[in-house]
Amino acid sequence: MFLEFNFASIPHIIFGAGKLNKIYEIIPKFGNNVLFVIGGSSLKKSGKWDEIESRMQKNNISFTSISVYGEPTPRLVDDAVNKFRNHNIDVIVGIGGGSVIDTGKAISAMLPKNDSIKNYLEGVGKKTHDGKKIPYIAVPTTSGTGSEATKNAVITEVGIEGFKKSLRHDNLIPNYAVIDPELVLSCPKSVSASCGMDAFTQLLEAFVSPKANLITDALAMSGMKQMKNAIITVCSEKSTDIHLRSAMAYGSFLSGVVLANAGLGIVHGFASSIGGLFEIPHGVVCGTLLAESTKVNIKRLEQLGTEHKNSLQKYALVGALINGKKCFEDIDIPHHCSILVDMLDNWTKKLNIDRLGQYGITSIDIDNIIEKTSLKNNPVQLKREDLHEILINRI
Amino acid sequence: MFLEFNFASIPHIIFGAGKLNKIYEIIPKFGNNVLFVIGGSSLKKSGKWDEIESRMQKNNISFTSISVYGEPTPRLVDDAVNKFRNHNIDVIVGIGGGSVIDTGKAISAMLPKNDSIKNYLEGVGKKTHDGKKIPYIAVPTTSGTGSEATKNAVITEVGIEGFKKSLRHDNLIPNYAVIDPELVLSCPKSVSASCGMDAFTQLLEAFVSPKANLITDALAMSGMKQMKNAIITVCSEKSTDIHLRSAMAYGSFLSGVVLANAGLGIVHGFASSIGGLFEIPHGVVCGTLLAESTKVNIKRLEQLGTEHKNSLQKYALVGALINGKKCFEDIDIPHHCSILVDMLDNWTKKLNIDRLGQYGITSIDIDNIIEKTSLKNNPVQLKREDLHEILINRI
Repeated sequence: MFLEFNFASIPHIIFGAGKLNKIYEIIPKFGNNVLFVIGGSSLKKSGKWDEIESRMQKNNISFTSISVYGEPTPRLVDDAVNKFRNHNIDVIVGIGGGSVIDTGKAISAMLPKNDSIKNYLEGVGKKTHDGKKIPYIAVPTTSGTGSEATKNAVITEVGIEGFKKSLRHDNLIPNYAVIDPELVLSCPKSVSASCGMDAFTQLLEAFVSPKANLITDALAMSGMKQMKNAIITVCSEKSTDIHLRSAMAYGSFLSGVVLANAGLGIVHGFASSIGGLFEIPHGVVCGTLLAESTKVNIKRLEQLGTEHKNSLQKYALVGALINGKKCFEDIDIPHHCSILVDMLDNWTKKLNIDRLGQYGITSIDIDNIIEKTSLKNNPVQLKREDLHEILINRI
Repeated sequence: MFLEFNFASIPHIIFGAGKLNKIYEIIPKFGNNVLFVIGGSSLKKSGKWDEIESRMQKNNISFTSISVYGEPTPRLVDDAVNKFRNHNIDVIVGIGGGSVIDTGKAISAMLPKNDSIKNYLEGVGKKTHDGKKIPYIAVPTTSGTGSEATKNAVITEVGIEGFKKSLRHDNLIPNYAVIDPELVLSCPKSVSASCGMDAFTQLLEAFVSPKANLITDALAMSGMKQMKNAIITVCSEKSTDIHLRSAMAYGSFLSGVVLANAGLGIVHGFASSIGGLFEIPHGVVCGTLLAESTKVNIKRLEQLGTEHKNSLQKYALVGALINGKKCFEDIDIPHHCSILVDMLDNWTKKLNIDRLGQYGITSIDIDNIIEKTSLKNNPVQLKREDLHEILINRI
């Protein structure tokens, strides 16, 4: 299976509790005029932002900052780029959840251009980005999207003509990813839960993708092995346990690495279409649809028979892994596939992941959603009725 | 164990039979004035060099080339840099074994400097390289050093005052690694064998290194899993089997990734000291010392008891893997450690790896070798008598 593959570069990673401090060593490598892209209030509330400001002043580094709220829109990115285009920014540091990391990535890519980001979005604009950018350091404060490891920034415009599309180029992979699990400690349980489900979805979808290769397989299994021991405890009770938070941050980072190289499946097909139509957090769409989509995928694979045995084996392997099995020889495939679905169902319930209905989505919307949904790199071709089944069970 | 780690960027990888052709798409991304660094005759004999020349001419890309023989010396690098400094080279492509890849890497790093490489070598010169370089594409034609994935170039000066030291900087990791197993098909069996043993040594030494982390562990295991099925067959009989050659090229590449991040142990400590004192291929030093060094490491770890259980467990895991075991639960540690040593001994014999004595090294040289040998990131502290035991058994 590994006869050929591409594997995009990954950022230089600095991982560990307290490693936020490393940004003071990294920034001067690129210059002394920094733009910070940060989120709403949590960084400021925690006192971390005051600390950053004082360290910057002490080190005589010029800096300015921009706070962003919600998922990045073309307008948000364009406005920021217009504001800072003539500021001679040397390096951008994005500190926040997936939306903030993506916003920083988009600004770093658009600052050298005199143009709107809309013209460069896949499936929206007609131009292709050339990869020229301002160096970018990504510092995630949630364990979810893995955006600190990816080459794309997801930009959203909500509405009838809405979309959720990517600005993408190999060179947009951040120069550094500083992953400090201490920054995730204050993340609320509900956010941790949906982010965690998103990251696990990414690992699983990349693992069963037809584009998977030996490297993505090794990394996806390593990520799932850590997350499966942590996800329920850290997202429902021990949210301040640094070891469990580290396990989640590790899995989340690897989910970005593997999705960038192996692609994703139907759950992220839905995340794209539903996210363009409704105001609903990305992690909730993934979390709420993961178990149901896996169930339908496995059902279709089983109907198709032996030529899809490899995908079923992989689902079974994950079932065995989650179930605590350490010996993966002669796994009973149907049995462990059904364990996987039960486990994911169980996680969805224990983590109180919202249903789509809680965001105003009803059965009337299903046709429109399906219309706009691509299967991406799903391991099996799904029919309209399959997509309908997944959605109706999570309305 | 994964509470903190650094993981250096890895190159963009293009892997697969026939993928050499991808260089014609990659080169124009950097410019249209190329310097090829190539080895002796094999590329020319195979007709591949003629093909490259004609494609370059057809695509109107200016190019020049330099052929290098043997391991790179400071003089070789300095002479090449002086020759091409004013040629406005846009990108360098190194096609060859580890020595050629390292030479290309060193030239790419030294072209922007008006200085000798000696001043920047670790433990030799007093200057620190700043990472500025000409973009570099590495195309390996052996499966051995993994240099296409590393951030250092090993430079050798043989003699009494000899050394084998690195020019190293995070930014010296090649921009692209194009790994085409077809290029390895014509590699002679003896070279394949010593290169293969070198790559396996790197995977194993990084796996048991105190600096190993979860990512290097996952990748090292993935590499060893592929190589253990291929090494004997491809290096002793089926040298033109593209699947087995792919497995070796895969393991070799990953050995570079893990050594760059987790470091190496005593075998490479010896490779550095012996390689500086004698004219002996790097792969032979590693191949000939691997089984003996592993035996002594395990013996010392067993004497030290429980605090070193993790390293013994890792050795046992590799023993179980090589032995074809698929179930890694409750492995008998002493039993599988001894299987590992027996297997490595067996490989050394089956692959006819030379002894040190065949390169003029005698027991009289042992003290001098030990004097110059560092333990690097060996899993256990070894004494002078341990090093003596390893060497005397392979003279």
